[in-house]
Amino acid sequence: MIDTILFKSRPVGEPTLDNFEFTQEETAELKDGQLRVKAAYISVDPYLRGRMSAAKSYIPPFEVGKPLLSGMVAEVIESKNEGFKKGEFVSGMLPWKTEQVVATEGLQKVDPNLAPLSAYLGIIGMTGLTAYLGLHEIGKPKEGETLVVSGAAGAVGSVVGQIGKILGLRVIGIAGSDEKTAMLKSKFGFDATINYKTTENMQQAIAEAAPNGVDIYFDNVGGPISDAVLFNINRFARMIICGAISVYNNTEIPTGVAVQPFLVKNSALMQGFIVSNYAAKFPEVAKQLANWLQQEKLTYTETVVEGFKNTPQAFLDMMNGKNKGKMVVKV
Amino acid sequence: MIDTILFKSRPVGEPTLDNFEFTQEETAELKDGQLRVKAAYISVDPYLRGRMSAAKSYIPPFEVGKPLLSGMVAEVIESKNEGFKKGEFVSGMLPWKTEQVVATEGLQKVDPNLAPLSAYLGIIGMTGLTAYLGLHEIGKPKEGETLVVSGAAGAVGSVVGQIGKILGLRVIGIAGSDEKTAMLKSKFGFDATINYKTTENMQQAIAEAAPNGVDIYFDNVGGPISDAVLFNINRFARMIICGAISVYNNTEIPTGVAVQPFLVKNSALMQGFIVSNYAAKFPEVAKQLANWLQQEKLTYTETVVEGFKNTPQAFLDMMNGKNKGKMVVKV
Repeated sequence: MIDTILFKSRPVGEPTLDNFEFTQEETAELKDGQLRVKAAYISVDPYLRGRMSAAKSYIPPFEVGKPLLSGMVAEVIESKNEGFKKGEFVSGMLPWKTEQVVATEGLQKVDPNLAPLSAYLGIIGMTGLTAYLGLHEIGKPKEGETLVVSGAAGAVGSVVGQIGKILGLRVIGIAGSDEKTAMLKSKFGFDATINYKTTENMQQAIAEAAPNGVDIYFDNVGGPISDAVLFNINRFARMIICGAISVYNNTEIPTGVAVQPFLVKNSALMQGFIVSNYAAKFPEVAKQLANWLQQEKLTYTETVVEGFKNTPQAFLDMMNGKNKGKMVVKV
Repeated sequence: MIDTILFKSRPVGEPTLDNFEFTQEETAELKDGQLRVKAAYISVDPYLRGRMSAAKSYIPPFEVGKPLLSGMVAEVIESKNEGFKKGEFVSGMLPWKTEQVVATEGLQKVDPNLAPLSAYLGIIGMTGLTAYLGLHEIGKPKEGETLVVSGAAGAVGSVVGQIGKILGLRVIGIAGSDEKTAMLKSKFGFDATINYKTTENMQQAIAEAAPNGVDIYFDNVGGPISDAVLFNINRFARMIICGAISVYNNTEIPTGVAVQPFLVKNSALMQGFIVSNYAAKFPEVAKQLANWLQQEKLTYTETVVEGFKNTPQAFLDMMNGKNKGKMVVKV
């Protein structure tokens, strides 16, 4: 029997374990061209909260009663496809099941000798691609500019900051604990950090950390932190809106400082970023990220939760900022 | 003696006549290379409200005790510059004086035989350039798309809508009276209009006027109207933030619906637009606008106030939406 996690009900506000349901199913028959794979690592990410809402978005909402799905690395345990052998590993967007029969469309082979398997969900996977492409495609960084990153100790944020340093930017990270901000400096090389939970006046703290103003803002959180950044942007600032985790659980429409006057005054830009819009650039960028990783110009932190049954709790913990870096479940 | 209007005090909230002061000064001596010019038309525009605040912006604030300045068309009445003859007309950013001695830097000659003098402040001047360049450079319009224009009966808005129609867009105009919305349809060819003052549910009204969603939003107003547009944007929508007249008089920091979740969901873009950033394109675009005007593909409305002494009141009336199209003072 195969363990599966179903999406039981749509959360109102903060998701809870009650929104998930464990079930079991029979193994399916393997047809020509297909693979039978066994889950190795499952990725839990903020964007999944969006798919739990019924609202129209860039990807369809999860269906109640069906399995959830996210990024997964899985081992091929049986193959009826010439391109894939038993014992090889693949990554792709797959349902939360311990084992399943899959078509090979949308799957990439991954090599456990080049990098640890979980890195294919993180720094050289969607996380790294998001960081690199968001920063380059919208941020258009120029050496010497100042970059502010919110959610800086998260999976994407910690990579954004490191790429910023590789490109010669002044990098300021905002995170939610002294332990996290210490790590941003010691491990990821951020120039300055702000613990938003212990800072009374964020607007002033950003001004102090960015004496030349903010040219690029990589926004993972939205809400009051992003409002405070607005007061410090420079002319022609670029704001990459990659996520708004601070408001994902809101039951009312979130409000905040009106951005329009800041945009007009500064000829500034805000643009929503979704990595899948840039799929054509994935191979080239993944190669660059892998090179930097090998050259030790990039490093990463991950929070690994053991056990398939802990996947829902891992998701909830990630939403509450209990992760450092990429949160993955080792099945 | 020359009449001058000084900036007497910074308005708090809505400006009043008390913020302006009339004075007189002696005529100055004309030096080599200079012109003596007599004001013909003075432009009053929303952006002047921004310069009345002390806050840092893309142009320095007006200085209290000094003359205000804005776009002006003036007649050369004496010349010590070979390039300009008595009786010719020039346009440029000039202090609010009935007569003055000026250097020729930043002045353009204008031809009263090609178009009425006031048009050089409007449809073939800064107004038309703003409409054309904002729509093209940020809006990147594609035939068949849907364009929403706020402040549609204003100087810039009415030109934006007409250019939208020339480019084959569906054009929806938002304005503040039935007289204005009627004019948008009959005179400027808008496809649909909304009177925001008599519409209870703006979000729904926009949805009905834009059955295929909103691809481009040319925003002159900010505030609740712009919030309502957000709920109707399409994937990859472009929002040109050209002005935020609805909040210019606010004494507190304006708030509204948080835009970030809408931008992420729709991979949408918001960008502040200031026409002076695109100065290199002015000659080419002005030529295009003049051609369209001659071909009667473009038309315009202006509200002409007579008398230099009425300039402050004309500005206040324009801020309150009492103008239709471009507001100018005939000196």
